[in-house]
Amino acid sequence: MNTQSKTTGVAMQRLAQARALMSREGIDAWLVPSADPHLSEYLPGYWQGRQWLSGFHGSVGTLIITQDFAGLWADSRYWEQASKELAGSSIELVKLQPGQTGPLEWLAEQARTDSVVAVDGAVLAVASSRTLAANLYEKGARLRTDLDLLTELWNDRPALPAQAIYEHAAPHATETRTDKLTRLRTVMAERGADWHFLATLDDIAWLFNLRGADVSYNPVFISFALIGPNSINLFVASEKVDAVLRRTLEQDGITLHEYTRIGTALRNVPKDARLLVDPARVTCGLLDYLDSEVTLVEGLNPTTLFKSQKSAADTRHIRQAMEQDGAALCEFFAWLDSALGKEPVSELTIDEKLSAARARRPGYVSQSFATIAGFNGNGAMPHYRATEEEHAQIEGDGLLLIDSGGQYLGGTTDITRMVPVGTPTAEQKRDCTRVLKGVIALSRAHFPRGILSPLLDSIARAPIWAEGVNYGHGTGHGVGYFLNVHEGPQVIAYQAAVTPQTAMQPGMITSIEPGTYRPGQWGVRIENLVINQEAGKTEFGEFLKFETLTLCPIDTRCLEIGLLTQEEREWLNEYHAQVRQRLSPLVEGAALAWLNGRTESV
Amino acid sequence: MNTQSKTTGVAMQRLAQARALMSREGIDAWLVPSADPHLSEYLPGYWQGRQWLSGFHGSVGTLIITQDFAGLWADSRYWEQASKELAGSSIELVKLQPGQTGPLEWLAEQARTDSVVAVDGAVLAVASSRTLAANLYEKGARLRTDLDLLTELWNDRPALPAQAIYEHAAPHATETRTDKLTRLRTVMAERGADWHFLATLDDIAWLFNLRGADVSYNPVFISFALIGPNSINLFVASEKVDAVLRRTLEQDGITLHEYTRIGTALRNVPKDARLLVDPARVTCGLLDYLDSEVTLVEGLNPTTLFKSQKSAADTRHIRQAMEQDGAALCEFFAWLDSALGKEPVSELTIDEKLSAARARRPGYVSQSFATIAGFNGNGAMPHYRATEEEHAQIEGDGLLLIDSGGQYLGGTTDITRMVPVGTPTAEQKRDCTRVLKGVIALSRAHFPRGILSPLLDSIARAPIWAEGVNYGHGTGHGVGYFLNVHEGPQVIAYQAAVTPQTAMQPGMITSIEPGTYRPGQWGVRIENLVINQEAGKTEFGEFLKFETLTLCPIDTRCLEIGLLTQEEREWLNEYHAQVRQRLSPLVEGAALAWLNGRTESV
Repeated sequence: MNTQSKTTGVAMQRLAQARALMSREGIDAWLVPSADPHLSEYLPGYWQGRQWLSGFHGSVGTLIITQDFAGLWADSRYWEQASKELAGSSIELVKLQPGQTGPLEWLAEQARTDSVVAVDGAVLAVASSRTLAANLYEKGARLRTDLDLLTELWNDRPALPAQAIYEHAAPHATETRTDKLTRLRTVMAERGADWHFLATLDDIAWLFNLRGADVSYNPVFISFALIGPNSINLFVASEKVDAVLRRTLEQDGITLHEYTRIGTALRNVPKDARLLVDPARVTCGLLDYLDSEVTLVEGLNPTTLFKSQKSAADTRHIRQAMEQDGAALCEFFAWLDSALGKEPVSELTIDEKLSAARARRPGYVSQSFATIAGFNGNGAMPHYRATEEEHAQIEGDGLLLIDSGGQYLGGTTDITRMVPVGTPTAEQKRDCTRVLKGVIALSRAHFPRGILSPLLDSIARAPIWAEGVNYGHGTGHGVGYFLNVHEGPQVIAYQAAVTPQTAMQPGMITSIEPGTYRPGQWGVRIENLVINQEAGKTEFGEFLKFETLTLCPIDTRCLEIGLLTQEEREWLNEYHAQVRQRLSPLVEGAALAWLNGRTESV
Repeated sequence: MNTQSKTTGVAMQRLAQARALMSREGIDAWLVPSADPHLSEYLPGYWQGRQWLSGFHGSVGTLIITQDFAGLWADSRYWEQASKELAGSSIELVKLQPGQTGPLEWLAEQARTDSVVAVDGAVLAVASSRTLAANLYEKGARLRTDLDLLTELWNDRPALPAQAIYEHAAPHATETRTDKLTRLRTVMAERGADWHFLATLDDIAWLFNLRGADVSYNPVFISFALIGPNSINLFVASEKVDAVLRRTLEQDGITLHEYTRIGTALRNVPKDARLLVDPARVTCGLLDYLDSEVTLVEGLNPTTLFKSQKSAADTRHIRQAMEQDGAALCEFFAWLDSALGKEPVSELTIDEKLSAARARRPGYVSQSFATIAGFNGNGAMPHYRATEEEHAQIEGDGLLLIDSGGQYLGGTTDITRMVPVGTPTAEQKRDCTRVLKGVIALSRAHFPRGILSPLLDSIARAPIWAEGVNYGHGTGHGVGYFLNVHEGPQVIAYQAAVTPQTAMQPGMITSIEPGTYRPGQWGVRIENLVINQEAGKTEFGEFLKFETLTLCPIDTRCLEIGLLTQEEREWLNEYHAQVRQRLSPLVEGAALAWLNGRTESV
């Protein structure tokens, strides 16, 4: 019995147990999202129930179980992986596409009078629960959010993580937590709120200048925060905070409580409180603790907008982190160029060598996400991850896609570059060139301050659409400051909801990462991080432009230079001149030689 | 006493009468929109109450009157005109800007407990009335839509128009009304509706292949349509339909009723009806006639989507109409070139000569909107209209903006061109060139079928934003087929709501008309109409591209050719080659010489 069929056998057994439990509880459909009480992107093992039940290991996906159907909704990033991992499990892969029925809508469509749908309220966003409950109600069906079916099924459920919390200190933290709390209280007052509840871990880490290691890649810690008119309450497992840090926090007026006490604390919020809460960033299970008379003031968490707008001091640290990251990449790429064709190199070797190069750099803390090193066909899976069991050797001809990033005390990096292996084909070069055109078009753009960021996506896509090509993921996501590599509220994606929250403001960092994916053949993506800078105020209003933060050569051996316009060549040459100028002081020997060679003008 | 102060004296007197009436009825705030029961863009005199009350003659604007305030909300197109016309009237101009408080939001913000807001339900869209009522309810205030205050005040209110209705016949009508009704019933059935109510005049004109002349520019007639499971009912004043047409319609199964009977007919819709209605395209006053048990099936009018997607046969007629329109423009521009500097030419002369040239063309019916001929500073008002009292002579140096269009039996045209007068300045040329770059960028774009049209706007604006320039209006509006020059559902405007209804489909015609306006100095706009054509299906999906329909030289004497890229010059030269090839068979003499001269390669 091979690994695959062992996994799917387990999934079928768990499905049968789930259905028996659903029968007992009178549940017709059970939805298991990829979610935790903090609505995090990366979940501690304790909250990976959807993965445990379905056997699909992708980071995003939603499982729905009924008595005669089981389906896993996943977006295009995961289709290849999901169809492999679900094969034989009896769980159907439902391909989630923009504008088509999502799992919540599917549940509402399928619902019949008196049918009962269960979702654990502890991990369901308030906004989602409201929509689902209303849609079910219309069909005469009912939503239950008070059942935790998973705990009953999952005997060997992992414990919650218990990594130590540490201070994100000056100079890298450029604003004190006291000043941040003052800013927060000002916005609370403007919105007429005297209480505020935070469940999202990056908001909490940013607000308190604290970091942790409870989940992979995101330097956050499992916690809640409840701010009242006369108190600042942080809920974390007490063993995570050492005596020194505890005293520092207490001196700043912060009261520490056990993580598990949040329910009680919410229950004790006074009835006349006006509590500011973000319905997209808190779960219904938590809000259910509140007295029904508490007034909810709903809106984006102020900290979400604060932390998206990096200060000038933050930006100075970020530029330094980008230089260190670029220098590490030069060392890595110099090694890769010398090793290819001479020693065995696999997708796993890439990850090892790249992480080692980064780890030698000052301020480095960890990866900011799992390295994606995909050779040829593997590069066509946008979120591919090589494993011990399945990975490719880098040999022969083709394209190697490397998407990686680091957490530094002074910033978070995220970069994708294409590497030519042997001799790339003309079509591969055309794909790379077209994607680069998209990067350049958006990187050069100026735009009105406050424009809703999804509206900018077509600038990057126009040169790609021009040839009948497109890609399923967004062009750009927000990036934190030594925080989550994916953060909001801005997003450059024409598939995204165009809400007022997505408005572009100075200091926001976003990725620009168009791509082209040819399933089974190769994938192309080129990614830089950019920061919104002021581009001046004219009689027509205030404008912003992008400063490219990422510093690393774009390998011109993957390009068909003749397809670039004069303006595009100039952008590329200017970018490479800046990369060479800023990185050469930080590298030497083979890495310096590689840098000089790869930044020559075209 | 000059005209201006006479007008504003009248406005103050009417305001006083309105306030007295509001006091008597217990109304705290009265909102008077620019609207009729058909939610038309162009209003018959009978429904121009906002204009009558305020003295502001712009086509779009909303008046709010309270006891101690009167404000007129207008968008950037009308700021110059409104501030002139409202001067001294005590009515404040409130500048409407994207993302800022509109009149309905302002009413809700200002409302106090127990205050009463009145809007005539006969002219208030259902969607707007719901939002407003809900927002007022939250403040403890109340909306009344059952009062027609205007009729009490307005003694010399004009009568409803009574122009004859005529058939839009084959070959220009390319689908029979019977076939259109069959298509409509199919969609009604898909949506689970057995009844359908239409109040929008272009939907009705399109569906029945009828045209009229009740309002300026739009060839429509005042009417309602009510389609039941066994009946097709058209409500028009009986004197508008001659005996022959009446018999034809009756043979097609259509029952004619007096326009004024719509209330009774709606009241008689059976309780168990499922009535399809578009809440954005019908007023609450009309729906109030329905029995409360009637089920509303809400969604876009199927005919709105049908008529937006021109068939291949329609497109053939449109191309011919564009050739005739282009030929008329050649004759006009040849005359203008010869006349400038030799005889007196005013903005009014432009309109006369241009309309005369169009009127000589086969298939011409009328203007499709009021010609905008604005010299220098007047061109900076996007919706400027020269009048007998106020207009400029075209003399000296500068730029003349001419935006005009015609209704032809086989299509509707809308074109803006810039004319150099004397010697335009370098800055004027740069403005024209930058605007042309926007036109070219979007004209060349390919894009996924179904993309929400507002998302395409940034492609046109990117070259304009690049230099810190922007414009307040949208880049593109839908255009009808011998119907309204402004139609939905698509709209290329980053300020517009990005709704699923705006999805791009084959056959839709849209304008591309970026601009630059320097108040008091000059304005630039260049406008072509384009139609969505299939651009092929690839492994990445179906793509669309634009075919440029408008045929008329873009005057290169207004351009700084050196600022165009190679690709932009190629586009311009290819466009001019096509214009010359298709128009030269239709013109002769001076017009042909002008065409040949103005289509030379650059």
